Amino acid sequence: MDIWEENVNEYVSNYSAITKETGKLFIFAGDQKIEHLNNDFKGDGISIEDANPEHLFKIAKYGKIGAFATQFGLICRYGKDYPDINYIVKLNSKTNLVETCQKDPISTLLIDVNDIVEFKKRTGLKIRGIGYTIYLGSEFENIMLSEASRLIHEAHKNGLIAVIWIYPRGKAIRNEKDPNLIAGATGVGACIGADFVKVNYPKSKEPEVDFKDAVASAGRTKVICAGGSSKKPEEFLKILSEQLNISGASGCATGRNIHQKSLLDAVALTYAINEIVYNNKTVEDALEFLKPEIKEKIRDEILLKQYESEKIK
Amino acid sequence: MDIWEENVNEYVSNYSAITKETGKLFIFAGDQKIEHLNNDFKGDGISIEDANPEHLFKIAKYGKIGAFATQFGLICRYGKDYPDINYIVKLNSKTNLVETCQKDPISTLLIDVNDIVEFKKRTGLKIRGIGYTIYLGSEFENIMLSEASRLIHEAHKNGLIAVIWIYPRGKAIRNEKDPNLIAGATGVGACIGADFVKVNYPKSKEPEVDFKDAVASAGRTKVICAGGSSKKPEEFLKILSEQLNISGASGCATGRNIHQKSLLDAVALTYAINEIVYNNKTVEDALEFLKPEIKEKIRDEILLKQYESEKIK
Amino acid sequence: MDIWEENVNEYVSNYSAITKETGKLFIFAGDQKIEHLNNDFKGDGISIEDANPEHLFKIAKYGKIGAFATQFGLICRYGKDYPDINYIVKLNSKTNLVETCQKDPISTLLIDVNDIVEFKKRTGLKIRGIGYTIYLGSEFENIMLSEASRLIHEAHKNGLIAVIWIYPRGKAIRNEKDPNLIAGATGVGACIGADFVKVNYPKSKEPEVDFKDAVASAGRTKVICAGGSSKKPEEFLKILSEQLNISGASGCATGRNIHQKSLLDAVALTYAINEIVYNNKTVEDALEFLKPEIKEKIRDEILLKQYESEKIK
Amino acid sequence: MDIWEENVNEYVSNYSAITKETGKLFIFAGDQKIEHLNNDFKGDGISIEDANPEHLFKIAKYGKIGAFATQFGLICRYGKDYPDINYIVKLNSKTNLVETCQKDPISTLLIDVNDIVEFKKRTGLKIRGIGYTIYLGSEFENIMLSEASRLIHEAHKNGLIAVIWIYPRGKAIRNEKDPNLIAGATGVGACIGADFVKVNYPKSKEPEVDFKDAVASAGRTKVICAGGSSKKPEEFLKILSEQLNISGASGCATGRNIHQKSLLDAVALTYAINEIVYNNKTVEDALEFLKPEIKEKIRDEILLKQYESEKIK
Amino acid sequence: MDIWEENVNEYVSNYSAITKETGKLFIFAGDQKIEHLNNDFKGDGISIEDANPEHLFKIAKYGKIGAFATQFGLICRYGKDYPDINYIVKLNSKTNLVETCQKDPISTLLIDVNDIVEFKKRTGLKIRGIGYTIYLGSEFENIMLSEASRLIHEAHKNGLIAVIWIYPRGKAIRNEKDPNLIAGATGVGACIGADFVKVNYPKSKEPEVDFKDAVASAGRTKVICAGGSSKKPEEFLKILSEQLNISGASGCATGRNIHQKSLLDAVALTYAINEIVYNNKTVEDALEFLKPEIKEKIRDEILLKQYESEKIK
Repeated sequence: MDIWEENVNEYVSNYSAITKETGKLFIFAGDQKIEHLNNDFKGDGISIEDANPEHLFKIAKYGKIGAFATQFGLICRYGKDYPDINYIVKLNSKTNLVETCQKDPISTLLIDVNDIVEFKKRTGLKIRGIGYTIYLGSEFENIMLSEASRLIHEAHKNGLIAVIWIYPRGKAIRNEKDPNLIAGATGVGACIGADFVKVNYPKSKEPEVDFKDAVASAGRTKVICAGGSSKKPEEFLKILSEQLNISGASGCATGRNIHQKSLLDAVALTYAINEIVYNNKTVEDALEFLKPEIKEKIRDEILLKQYESEKIK
Repeated sequence: MDIWEENVNEYVSNYSAITKETGKLFIFAGDQKIEHLNNDFKGDGISIEDANPEHLFKIAKYGKIGAFATQFGLICRYGKDYPDINYIVKLNSKTNLVETCQKDPISTLLIDVNDIVEFKKRTGLKIRGIGYTIYLGSEFENIMLSEASRLIHEAHKNGLIAVIWIYPRGKAIRNEKDPNLIAGATGVGACIGADFVKVNYPKSKEPEVDFKDAVASAGRTKVICAGGSSKKPEEFLKILSEQLNISGASGCATGRNIHQKSLLDAVALTYAINEIVYNNKTVEDALEFLKPEIKEKIRDEILLKQYESEKIK
Repeated sequence: MDIWEENVNEYVSNYSAITKETGKLFIFAGDQKIEHLNNDFKGDGISIEDANPEHLFKIAKYGKIGAFATQFGLICRYGKDYPDINYIVKLNSKTNLVETCQKDPISTLLIDVNDIVEFKKRTGLKIRGIGYTIYLGSEFENIMLSEASRLIHEAHKNGLIAVIWIYPRGKAIRNEKDPNLIAGATGVGACIGADFVKVNYPKSKEPEVDFKDAVASAGRTKVICAGGSSKKPEEFLKILSEQLNISGASGCATGRNIHQKSLLDAVALTYAINEIVYNNKTVEDALEFLKPEIKEKIRDEILLKQYESEKIK
Repeated sequence: MDIWEENVNEYVSNYSAITKETGKLFIFAGDQKIEHLNNDFKGDGISIEDANPEHLFKIAKYGKIGAFATQFGLICRYGKDYPDINYIVKLNSKTNLVETCQKDPISTLLIDVNDIVEFKKRTGLKIRGIGYTIYLGSEFENIMLSEASRLIHEAHKNGLIAVIWIYPRGKAIRNEKDPNLIAGATGVGACIGADFVKVNYPKSKEPEVDFKDAVASAGRTKVICAGGSSKKPEEFLKILSEQLNISGASGCATGRNIHQKSLLDAVALTYAINEIVYNNKTVEDALEFLKPEIKEKIRDEILLKQYESEKIK
Repeated sequence: MDIWEENVNEYVSNYSAITKETGKLFIFAGDQKIEHLNNDFKGDGISIEDANPEHLFKIAKYGKIGAFATQFGLICRYGKDYPDINYIVKLNSKTNLVETCQKDPISTLLIDVNDIVEFKKRTGLKIRGIGYTIYLGSEFENIMLSEASRLIHEAHKNGLIAVIWIYPRGKAIRNEKDPNLIAGATGVGACIGADFVKVNYPKSKEPEVDFKDAVASAGRTKVICAGGSSKKPEEFLKILSEQLNISGASGCATGRNIHQKSLLDAVALTYAINEIVYNNKTVEDALEFLKPEIKEKIRDEILLKQYESEKIK
């Protein structure tokens, strides 16, 4: 309701673009170069391709995703060559160098919504929304709650979608993945007016059941789940499917599980995720996309798109 | 006196709406999704309906209340479907994760008065006033006193009512419910120009007598009482009646006691509270509304209203 | 010299009003409802009338004072009914809950000078100046020195008088009433351009002699003395007279000694103080006003004024 | 180079006025009423005249100095009667109450450059520049470095001279008067664009030799020396002469050594300093001014000026 | 992409100027007068010429460099006489007095981008870009990340190049020169949109191999290497050549290795570095410039340029 009338069309168009008119959302999350520094991009089991930040943009271009979330600076550097991606600008980020036992987490604005709005106007890039992380229970919680609330309102006034990452973290938090705490976090997302709130999946005996509370608590704010560390595709897709179909989540924000793979594997996985999130398919259906013969076809699609991109240039 | 002339009508209309021209105020307080996270919304003795934030709006719509206080984000998400509610926007909120022994409480602005004023103009929602919590005696007291003072003045200039929650809290506070301390808190509310100051009911042998000090100390600023944790309706209404009729309080701000019930029970309780606060009735009169036969009638009223709402759509 | 030409008349008129063209100033200080919470308003030896904040306004109206200093919020609530009082708006205030051993004192702006100026213009209230407290030697001294300096200049530009309360306080201060330290405080008042600086009276063998240093140190900034806790009128007036006639002080800012009495006693005491401060009278002359027969006359005056006020309404 | 073209004349005129077209600068420093409270103004060996802040203005008027540096508030109170003094407004100040072992020093803006510029325009006072103190090595160094840098640029844009006091101080500083550290301090002054940087004279076997480094390090920013605590005139002038003629300093900023004397002694000393700083004279030449017979003449000059001032009034 | 259209030419011209159209960058870094105080400018093995800050400008003028990075204040003091230098304004700086074990490092803005843009317009100086240092892993990391992000965007909008120094430092950092951590730092530079990110060269068995990660991680943001403490020219050039030709770095930012030499030696070394960075030459080729006979020629060139500069004046 806080979308100004003159920007309702913009909002609807952004919302439709990233939800593919299903109300669901699959974010390809690519903000880890600040959040986790180089640890997520080099090491055992990580494709060598992931060393280059452009890998993220390639996946976002050739994969089937709802939106690609990353920092403004990277979008400035690569956006011109990747004009067809739906972007969500992650407005704050921190490194993982200072641990909670040293100082409670704080992450503040890198760039303001107004800058994003002006940038979008001037470049025509498909900036669909903004993202922001709140560390609930940090001693600096109030700073982040205040920034986030204001940003969400600024985004809405300008027709942008607001996605809020909420992680309970700080010396006060004993169990970051407590189901009831996570249901509290999604409720906070609703109270500050987020369109989507991204939280960690609870750790419990029956997380898919417990997570219903988080979905309920958020009301009309939709809940999407963080991907967490890399898992086997079958396991990852199974959990995702449960989140959507049992818990009632509205999608996922997945990063490492995707970009630590080679371009082809990553793209294939986005196809699979896309099936589950947007097309209501089963895990089995989705796993089809990871079979060698289908992957061959995906490779061809990528090559064709690359050829066409070159031609335009 | 700090209501600008051009907004006096607005102020009077807001004041009349929430006090029903009695000078009394019954706030249905619904800001706990940040303040207490999910703890107030799920658990033993809490209606399953309370898991959904819309429950709050339904109660506010079908119940008989003066105003519904909640965060801006929730109002944005539900306001369009609940245009007849009188809203008080709770401008700040914090979680209860960081305990006082770790760090003194601080709660800062989520959204500014100017944003609320513009929002009201654009949406036509019945935003009647603003709310803000001060933790008196916190090491960060000065930040909240300053924000609150400025906000009250901004609200008044724009014709909005200012309701200030004042809770003594922090390492310096040994007894948060000391009657004399609470009388100090209401006096502070007066000094910063609040229309209503909401405080906790003192704990003492004769709280209803001791609380007179708090009412006196506030002068022309009216005192309303926090509802606290859930109690049996009889007990709750008895205390409420004493607060008004013995202590001289001007109403109450009640949350958990209402919304942790089913819609029907909650609505019925608002009817009962309404009788005491606005119609000067006795506890016995008020308890009538909680009898099965009357509740049947209330159920019919709710259904009729629901039917009409649907028709309009 | 920092009074803008267009506001010099305003400044002169404000200055004349509160000094009664004597260069002296008797402030009736009524900011304790935040500073000391309810402790100053209820208890042994405190008139029951003092429980109601309006008591302060009544004293200010019926008494003979230079100006009444209190917070903006109270003025907003009562000013309309007390349009003849000369007001000094106390711009900052803190409670006494957090003790210095826990955290050094900090008190920040509740409302800005510009708001006061606009308020005065719109309401026509006799706002004559602003007040602000600095805790010298606090770890947060720089914040208060900066705010005060800026405020004084803003006040002057707009023709308002600036009265600065300066109290040495903090873990670094061993003796808050050391005469040399207090002379330092008044010097600071001069350096930031205050018209009047209010300090505590030193504790020493011959405070009336030692206090001369404070008066000298302030130069053209005039020094007035805090009243401190309640004393017997004879003792209070004797000290006041010494402050003016031996030390060279320019008046006093008295609160508790006045408002903890009944209206009649309080008003009578203001008559007595008025004689000493503005009319250069002896303690004996002043004490006349506290005699039963004169108090009878004062009672009549009050009743007459009340009658006239009512008539106007 | 950051003096805007339209203000170059203003800058040149200010620079010429305080350097008497020699490139040298003798500041009479009078900011101690905040920095040292009353300690510098009363006590053994301090003239009784120094108790009154006007003493500073009298010295500045009747003495031969380059500029008088003091806080804005004092200038507002006395400037009208002392229109011929060249003023440098000391923009920040702190007391010495909180010691470094308790908290590292921080001193922040009392008034902004824009206020000074407007004040100068309106009053016509000869405000020639601004002063600001940085505590290098304090934990709050960054706040003061940032404020100073911005201020210097603001001052220059408006044609004002910027004089920066830089004192290494804080828990990290073991020897505040280490020659190499002081050479570092003057280099910092150069890097932030100060016209003059005032530092303490190093403590070492041959300070006059070691101090050359500080002068060299500052490059085109000129170095002037703090006067420190009171010394005998002969000693004081000898050191001053060495600072200028051996070390290559460009002048001095002297306070206590001057104002703790009677007006006549103080004025005579400014004559002596003036000879060394501006007229390139020897200590012996300068000491002439302190002889009884010359002082008699100076007394006559003062009386004559006073007579003329009175006549104008 | 965040260069506003109207400033693209400005950006391209700045970029071409400092990269000499090679995409490489050799910064002569001269910000140590704040960062290291006088320690870098006087001592064993440091040329006496380095004591004068103008030494830096002379090297920048007579040497062959891409750009000279220093603080705004120095540029204001010397720029007029050195109009042909390409400048990068270092926007923040701190001293090394407070060690990390006392307080984590923080360095904040001395001057804003808008001031630089206005200054450039008014003076015509060849300001090509801005520099800023981030201490990653400091407890104040968020303040510097936020400032840097905003500054880079401001710079780009105005057509200026943004060079970001990123050093992991703070109590949380055990090994500042860990290769993977440095690769994280360059990635952060990319995420905030820096054109060039300057980092320390890793310490490891094969730094030239490990440093490839840092270059990869930065993507389209180019990586340049800090020079560190003074080394023998042969060693210095060998490492530089490896950084460019093995690791894939895009240049260097060198300070002490250059300015601690006499003007002639310093200029000769810039010739050598220039060969390696911009002209793709071998270490052997570069070392030619350090031979006595070539240095004689360089001396002549300097003298000729000096002669011409004088003539113009």
